[in-house]
Amino acid sequence: MREEATAFVPGHVTGFFSAHPHEDPTKAGSRGAGLTLTDGVEVTVRPVSESADEPPTIVLDGEETAVEPVATVLEALGVSARVEADADLPLGAGFGVSGAMALGTALAANRAFDRKLSQNELVTIAHGAEVRAETGLGDVVAQAQGGVPIRLEPGGPQVNELDAIPARARVEYVAFGELSTAAVLSGDTDRLTEAGTTALSRVVEEPTLLSFVYASRAFAREAGLLTDRVAAAIEDVADAGGQASMAMLGDTVFALGTGLSDAGYDPAVCATHPAGAMLR
Amino acid sequence: MREEATAFVPGHVTGFFSAHPHEDPTKAGSRGAGLTLTDGVEVTVRPVSESADEPPTIVLDGEETAVEPVATVLEALGVSARVEADADLPLGAGFGVSGAMALGTALAANRAFDRKLSQNELVTIAHGAEVRAETGLGDVVAQAQGGVPIRLEPGGPQVNELDAIPARARVEYVAFGELSTAAVLSGDTDRLTEAGTTALSRVVEEPTLLSFVYASRAFAREAGLLTDRVAAAIEDVADAGGQASMAMLGDTVFALGTGLSDAGYDPAVCATHPAGAMLR
Repeated sequence: MREEATAFVPGHVTGFFSAHPHEDPTKAGSRGAGLTLTDGVEVTVRPVSESADEPPTIVLDGEETAVEPVATVLEALGVSARVEADADLPLGAGFGVSGAMALGTALAANRAFDRKLSQNELVTIAHGAEVRAETGLGDVVAQAQGGVPIRLEPGGPQVNELDAIPARARVEYVAFGELSTAAVLSGDTDRLTEAGTTALSRVVEEPTLLSFVYASRAFAREAGLLTDRVAAAIEDVADAGGQASMAMLGDTVFALGTGLSDAGYDPAVCATHPAGAMLR
Repeated sequence: MREEATAFVPGHVTGFFSAHPHEDPTKAGSRGAGLTLTDGVEVTVRPVSESADEPPTIVLDGEETAVEPVATVLEALGVSARVEADADLPLGAGFGVSGAMALGTALAANRAFDRKLSQNELVTIAHGAEVRAETGLGDVVAQAQGGVPIRLEPGGPQVNELDAIPARARVEYVAFGELSTAAVLSGDTDRLTEAGTTALSRVVEEPTLLSFVYASRAFAREAGLLTDRVAAAIEDVADAGGQASMAMLGDTVFALGTGLSDAGYDPAVCATHPAGAMLR
């Protein structure tokens, strides 16, 4: 057993998606596309001994917190640990922070406890944990791949199918507030799924960043998910000649290049992350 | 059309493999495992106009050269270009330089000529070109993924199946000379395939770096591919308490950590590359 291990997992902004439930959480998931981000989550796992009165704990940015998928991952690996996560990104705002915590925990715990699981096994565990907790459907598999993933078929790595847009970009974003992924996913998802399917066809036909943002914007509108603040920001960016859309699912606007700066906003700035989740 | 575009592709050292021919080059390939490397190949593609008397050219480390898979990739994309590659690694020594050139050309040409192909399409083109030229069977798909890829099923991204060892490592290597991939692959590959299958089972059962090097060493011996110089270096590293094996297919020894330095060699030093091939 090592003293501790650390993994970095890129953030992930989904531009559009369709939900694909399945009773087996490793087969459930989403189709869609998004950007993985150089802003992400660093997760450190340290084995604890409950007999020595060291309780297992999950800490996010210095605050003890309950993150269901992380607890599920630790349980699946059969380990007792203190998990400390430092996020460049806000939780609940559409950046895949819970997925990043689950995947980072899986990778770091596998190393810290010398569990000898493969990459696909670890991604499957984290993906299943995230689906069960209803905190996300496609972030984990996208974050494991990096770049600009297209999720052609839903589910964990044993069943899904991924492609990618072969591109890199500077990314700007402003997070206005939270949206509950679970609330949206437990509602009527027919309209969302139809809009997501249309968007995916568009990006498969033309896998470029520009078509991704167009498709994402049409999806946000058609699925009825646009918040007022995001809608206004997208319009401001368009007026300034840029391209923006909404992070699914958060009250968050993201733009390519200098879209939000040019429109007079004061955005956070990062870039697409060429690599997937990785041990430090 | 852009003036030019550049891609970086990590080197790839295969530790063991089995060959799986198929009449469709996008379905042919290999099973096996290897290390992608921070030492790699940077490929710049610049459109040329043959009518303006600018011939298409392939240049490797400043020398004009013929690299069949690169020419095939340009042809498949229907473009005329000058390709300039700068390699940190020697050609023909088991580092997947030809695969890196093919994949880097595909990614950079797609961008330079705005061809709008997806990542999987580009990897498929580069993989097929490499298989047809008999310069490699599994480097391209490994180099597209990065990390420490396990190739569970052969072929391009539409048909293959990949996993990975979730680990990073410092890697040392000494290249003594060249071996011809085509010569080995066109010979009797039964013994090689049997040894490769055994090695893969071992790594699937325990996907760790240590089991990868053990399996690779057993493979090199059983497949009858060990050269005298590599065999001696592996023994020297073992005597110094380290782990080394042979790069398939080159007269090259690689070691984890400081294995070769500890044994008194003066190796090149790099590390596993967490990301797959990427545009600059």
